[in-house]
Amino acid sequence: MVKISVISIGTELLKEKSNTNLFYISKKLFSLGLNINFCSVLPDNENVLTEIFKYHIDSSDIIILTGGLGSTVDDITIQTIAKFLNKKLVFVRKIYENIVRYFIDKGQELPQLVKKQAYVIEGAEIIFNKVGQAPGEKIVLKKDKGQKIIYILPGPPRELQQMFDEYVFVELKKYQTKVSKEVVLHICDIPESKIEEIIKPVIESEKKYSSDINFSILPHLNIVDLKITITSEDELKVDEELKLIKKQIYDCFEEHNLKHKIYAEDKQTLEQVVGFILGKNKKTLAVAESCTGGLLAHRITNIAGSSFYFLGGVVVYSNQLKMKLLDVKKETLETYGAVSEETVKEMCLGIKKLTGADYCISISGIAGPTGATKDKPLGTVWICIFDGKIFNTKCVRFLGSRLEVKEQAVNTALDMLSNHILSLLHHKK
Amino acid sequence: MVKISVISIGTELLKEKSNTNLFYISKKLFSLGLNINFCSVLPDNENVLTEIFKYHIDSSDIIILTGGLGSTVDDITIQTIAKFLNKKLVFVRKIYENIVRYFIDKGQELPQLVKKQAYVIEGAEIIFNKVGQAPGEKIVLKKDKGQKIIYILPGPPRELQQMFDEYVFVELKKYQTKVSKEVVLHICDIPESKIEEIIKPVIESEKKYSSDINFSILPHLNIVDLKITITSEDELKVDEELKLIKKQIYDCFEEHNLKHKIYAEDKQTLEQVVGFILGKNKKTLAVAESCTGGLLAHRITNIAGSSFYFLGGVVVYSNQLKMKLLDVKKETLETYGAVSEETVKEMCLGIKKLTGADYCISISGIAGPTGATKDKPLGTVWICIFDGKIFNTKCVRFLGSRLEVKEQAVNTALDMLSNHILSLLHHKK
Repeated sequence: MVKISVISIGTELLKEKSNTNLFYISKKLFSLGLNINFCSVLPDNENVLTEIFKYHIDSSDIIILTGGLGSTVDDITIQTIAKFLNKKLVFVRKIYENIVRYFIDKGQELPQLVKKQAYVIEGAEIIFNKVGQAPGEKIVLKKDKGQKIIYILPGPPRELQQMFDEYVFVELKKYQTKVSKEVVLHICDIPESKIEEIIKPVIESEKKYSSDINFSILPHLNIVDLKITITSEDELKVDEELKLIKKQIYDCFEEHNLKHKIYAEDKQTLEQVVGFILGKNKKTLAVAESCTGGLLAHRITNIAGSSFYFLGGVVVYSNQLKMKLLDVKKETLETYGAVSEETVKEMCLGIKKLTGADYCISISGIAGPTGATKDKPLGTVWICIFDGKIFNTKCVRFLGSRLEVKEQAVNTALDMLSNHILSLLHHKK
Repeated sequence: MVKISVISIGTELLKEKSNTNLFYISKKLFSLGLNINFCSVLPDNENVLTEIFKYHIDSSDIIILTGGLGSTVDDITIQTIAKFLNKKLVFVRKIYENIVRYFIDKGQELPQLVKKQAYVIEGAEIIFNKVGQAPGEKIVLKKDKGQKIIYILPGPPRELQQMFDEYVFVELKKYQTKVSKEVVLHICDIPESKIEEIIKPVIESEKKYSSDINFSILPHLNIVDLKITITSEDELKVDEELKLIKKQIYDCFEEHNLKHKIYAEDKQTLEQVVGFILGKNKKTLAVAESCTGGLLAHRITNIAGSSFYFLGGVVVYSNQLKMKLLDVKKETLETYGAVSEETVKEMCLGIKKLTGADYCISISGIAGPTGATKDKPLGTVWICIFDGKIFNTKCVRFLGSRLEVKEQAVNTALDMLSNHILSLLHHKK
């Protein structure tokens, strides 16, 4: 198989910046059944780049370099590679004109240093940049046995992605030998170990399939992603076996009466699922938050089009506001406390009265790091769903930081809402 | 200087998982004036690890390997390195007892495969794992000229950090030859290019200092982080010059009447600054959000202790709710639209009336991807600050995705609030 490696250039990538370009390239190659052999992450340093580039040239067939094509003195990729290959840099008028036009269009003055970006390595094919300045380059090196291909792409993800998709990906398609596909099942509110137990029969039956099958379980904030990857030379077989295995997994969950806990597949989020169900059934939603402090409303409104079903919400951080805005009774707060089943029920009644929404969610809890009592430890959260008739309440204790408690509470609340609506619809049938 | 490199092992690190261990090691080394020369990111693959390890041994003095020490068949680090070095694996009873105790303490059954983790490379020094199972190892290789040191550490960040701090860091201290320190200035609402222009005199004066000075400008969502890094053999000099340069930068901003735009240093966030100012002056805050959909309240309530100054907020996504909850007038919405100066002013009046907070913020805009009109393009956002007497309004057009527009609007609103309060306090003096 063709050996592909990546060189990610940028001091920040060693220090704090997530390597999104690597992930992007990796996902795209995966869809062709190709893998990145390895990746080197380097600082903006000429000596290190020279040394590492030599190693990649010796060990890989295709090398994809990203980053270091900017106009400042830090950006040394093109100069270093040209020097290593013993090639000149040549000025390309067309690139320079593109850059000039870019600044004119933005109504900005042309920075002096930017001319540097119009120089490319002698003999390189130019990959034009449609969304930024620095062009990409492709260099083919003839070697004793065959050739080495070098792609040089800019660091800003938007620019890299456009050039990768339109140029590099198209070229790499010819190396495709296998097909890999994956499906991710998203499950809320079931621990990782329980999921392993549930799907054990599927994992054990794996050998009966001819493709290469891989399961991975990734937990995060009360959600678990179960990823199934299948690779084979035969695309039809991949599709067929992926479908079979998915069905087997759903059946296993069904046996445990937990099928409804798989709330979505692939890129779908909980808030999308909730939005879809509400939109489809022409129902509206409003929320009343205490400890999640606006995160629930924020997550719901991240979905484009949420204004069709989301009326709004209140963040009642103080007890005064709980009483004033939502008519939570003083004696309820005094007798049971703000973090109690009684309070979240009254919060739901209050937001229903204010907004008239078909469905209401309320959340009250102790996000930490302070506020815990003997009976109510840190992370204790009460959640209530109200459909105008039935209250559905739940008390959970989440572990983790303040933000992690907020996230887990929101995930659980959204999952409760979608299950609540779906079971209502099911009963009506 | 000693050449240190890192090998990060784990297929997920090539696909989607942020390399937090690399960042951790990098920060720790930086505090000793040491740098990571480069990092290789590899899949869990024996052949690739063998090949890359050979390259690191040839090019580095100290190699830190992380990951692949688990108990499953995927985990191949120890076996691969042992084979490469032509060493046996030896069973260490003490490690096995630690692992057994770990599972007994957790009340869990001992998994069969776990015994594998009690084998270490012959001759290695053992780094005991106090928070997990797999031990770390240190191997010293005698070479023609001097020696190579290899540290092998587990992948889970909690385990790696404990071992790195207590063992590796302590040993690496002896290589410290220089001291590096950095300061980060956070600036809101000034474009990157303008900041470069403002600090140009400082950058140009850099040569008068004897230390090694580096400036970097990192923009993200209407905030720019200006990082100044100073490295020298003399710690006192580093402290002194860092102080001098910081003062010079503040002076440059002062000359442009923009000193107030530097809202914080180092790890402080905008919401922390706002919280600090409100807490110190015993003032309260409430918010009324439309397009930001709860993100403003969420950001404010991410700060522990925010319940002391944050009363709460409303998310008025629908026009009905704007009228009902905040008394926004129907004719205002009809004449000027929901995204207008008049509407955000009335929203502030409304939330003030509801909550009685000392300061109020309101935001209304078009987050996209739809909802734009000819006069009001996507990303148009009106923000209003109200202190009970004075309204401070601003209309900004943000670029980017729905979420990016929300984030930028929140950053701008928090910056406006802190500047508003600070200028009030200044005038009182």
